[in-house]
Amino acid sequence: MADTAAIHTESHVLAMAQPLLLDSGRSLAPVEIAYQTYGRLNAAKDNAILVCHALTGDQHLASPHPKTGKPGWWQRVVGPGLPIDTDRFFVICSNVIGSCMGSSGPSSAAEDGAPFAMRFPVITIRDMVRAQVALVDHLGIDRLHALVGGSMGGMQVLSWAANWPDRFGAALVLASAARHSAQNIAFHEVGRQAIMADPEWKGGNYYSEAVDDPRKVGPESGLAVARMAAHITYLSEQGLTEKFGRRLQDRETKTFGFDADFQVESYLRYQGLSFTDRFDANSYLYITRAMDYFDLAEEHGAHGKPGNLAEAFAGLKARMCLVSFDTDWLYPTSESRRIAHAVNAAGAPVSFVELSAPFGHDSFLLDVPALDRVIAGFL
Amino acid sequence: MADTAAIHTESHVLAMAQPLLLDSGRSLAPVEIAYQTYGRLNAAKDNAILVCHALTGDQHLASPHPKTGKPGWWQRVVGPGLPIDTDRFFVICSNVIGSCMGSSGPSSAAEDGAPFAMRFPVITIRDMVRAQVALVDHLGIDRLHALVGGSMGGMQVLSWAANWPDRFGAALVLASAARHSAQNIAFHEVGRQAIMADPEWKGGNYYSEAVDDPRKVGPESGLAVARMAAHITYLSEQGLTEKFGRRLQDRETKTFGFDADFQVESYLRYQGLSFTDRFDANSYLYITRAMDYFDLAEEHGAHGKPGNLAEAFAGLKARMCLVSFDTDWLYPTSESRRIAHAVNAAGAPVSFVELSAPFGHDSFLLDVPALDRVIAGFL
Repeated sequence: MADTAAIHTESHVLAMAQPLLLDSGRSLAPVEIAYQTYGRLNAAKDNAILVCHALTGDQHLASPHPKTGKPGWWQRVVGPGLPIDTDRFFVICSNVIGSCMGSSGPSSAAEDGAPFAMRFPVITIRDMVRAQVALVDHLGIDRLHALVGGSMGGMQVLSWAANWPDRFGAALVLASAARHSAQNIAFHEVGRQAIMADPEWKGGNYYSEAVDDPRKVGPESGLAVARMAAHITYLSEQGLTEKFGRRLQDRETKTFGFDADFQVESYLRYQGLSFTDRFDANSYLYITRAMDYFDLAEEHGAHGKPGNLAEAFAGLKARMCLVSFDTDWLYPTSESRRIAHAVNAAGAPVSFVELSAPFGHDSFLLDVPALDRVIAGFL
Repeated sequence: MADTAAIHTESHVLAMAQPLLLDSGRSLAPVEIAYQTYGRLNAAKDNAILVCHALTGDQHLASPHPKTGKPGWWQRVVGPGLPIDTDRFFVICSNVIGSCMGSSGPSSAAEDGAPFAMRFPVITIRDMVRAQVALVDHLGIDRLHALVGGSMGGMQVLSWAANWPDRFGAALVLASAARHSAQNIAFHEVGRQAIMADPEWKGGNYYSEAVDDPRKVGPESGLAVARMAAHITYLSEQGLTEKFGRRLQDRETKTFGFDADFQVESYLRYQGLSFTDRFDANSYLYITRAMDYFDLAEEHGAHGKPGNLAEAFAGLKARMCLVSFDTDWLYPTSESRRIAHAVNAAGAPVSFVELSAPFGHDSFLLDVPALDRVIAGFL
């Protein structure tokens, strides 16, 4: 529990009394759900907004990250007087299961006291949401005012809409998709192979080394390469050109060597290395797998056949808003439009807007004033 | 020297008498240039076409690859009665320096008899062309009938056009670029980091192990990951979706594990693994570096300032044709158009066509009948 001057925020961990039943048919136990809240729940318990985080995100929305000390990842959006206004709303963000910031994941202790490692069950986006539903139940909230999520966070919001449609009043999905495309899967597979090819991965059993040398643990090289490959997909070609072009890094001429001559090389190397300080490689495997498995239409098909996407939203009455970015090639506008058509076909109120921003997929995390207006207006 | 029933082809290696002076200021010695010819040089020596190969290509255009036994990579295009007709033309293809199919590269013996490894000098696209010019001189050919190249092969053709504009009559550039973009560099850097992060890379000194175990040498895991990442860029999102979609590989349901459940995963893993059988990891480092360094306008700037691209083509009189593919996001149409404008501004005859094909960058290697017509018509 901690207060900052500007924002009332609390840290909690919920230990679930029951195992969590999973899409795979397996169950997860023990289950802990680490979450952060901002603002205060009102007496009617009707002012709560659940924000769902992305692949490498966490619950530290608007307060400093405990490992890196950096500002929360959505500090620009969540706070008093900001688009998600903590003077009005009680904002909840929980670390997804499978992750590594306090919720149960492969680095957590299993019932035998040793880390799960690859004994952790493969989870789905819907399983992540099951944990969130349990948390919302625990908080005594019947109906969330709204759900908000970008990228994988948007997938969670879509899963809420398909499976728990009466538990929220509005849903905002940013830069997301209702299924992972072949190209999306391909990029994730490259990252997983990079991690699993690293001899330090050791079949996932690298945690015991932490005792001897906590500074350097696990398949850091493989995880850094995975992050570098993924990072390219988060930016647009245009954005990379504007930000880096072919400019050299701290030198006048090419070195005719393999140092990071170009700024873009230096930037990517930094992104890769800094990521390994805050993220667990096995969590990266599990969460990317959950994303690859995500296909909302398939999930709601009958008799083993994929359904059409509208069927997934059959029970939905809540307002939904979808936002895409014109330079996002990871989850392009066409995918958001497809979702909007499906929600509309299901008879729920839906709006859709494509925003123009040069930052590619990462636009939902960056300074895009038009996005702030959409968020504030919708909520 | 070898004949097949259908096509007259010969294998040669030229050992250069002189060191090759390089853009870096260093020189390379000894220099060997392995090349393959198809068809016969006429008495006037004016029917020669030099085909320049791409990053992971080689001189085995239209005859079986000696390591894999697979058909030549352009067997569809080069042969009697084919678009590059070996009944009319004497077709030459030489392995680029830096590569690993017989021309001098990091796996070749340096003057001390040991492999160059990372002692091999960093080369440029223009250095590759310098070796080709030496080969053409050696063959007694004053003027090539034409130059043809796709992707990195196209970069070589552009470098010929900028630096040896009077040595050929026509130049055909397919799916290429006059400079590497930040995104292009970024993908290559991921591949290089994957290779160099592999402990089996050993600073490039992995060749000696070949004596003990020739089947498993060097940073195979890293090289496979590099190839997987690159392979995604060679295909279009649309092509991946059409070819694989979200179809599962030899199974009815997801396994909730980390096997290659999806066809696209299985395909990428195969691409990665099979590549390591035929390609040298250090060559991959050197050739990707040469491509990243390529910027034809910068190369022809004055006083250390980048020039405009038209200046690079100031001496050009030969006919030039540029072809792009609408689904190629590695070297998009806009880049070919930029080159066409520059050649036109320089006063040389140029034509440009964007072809429609679903295969992305790899379209220049695949069955695109419209491309065959363009090639045959232009030559």
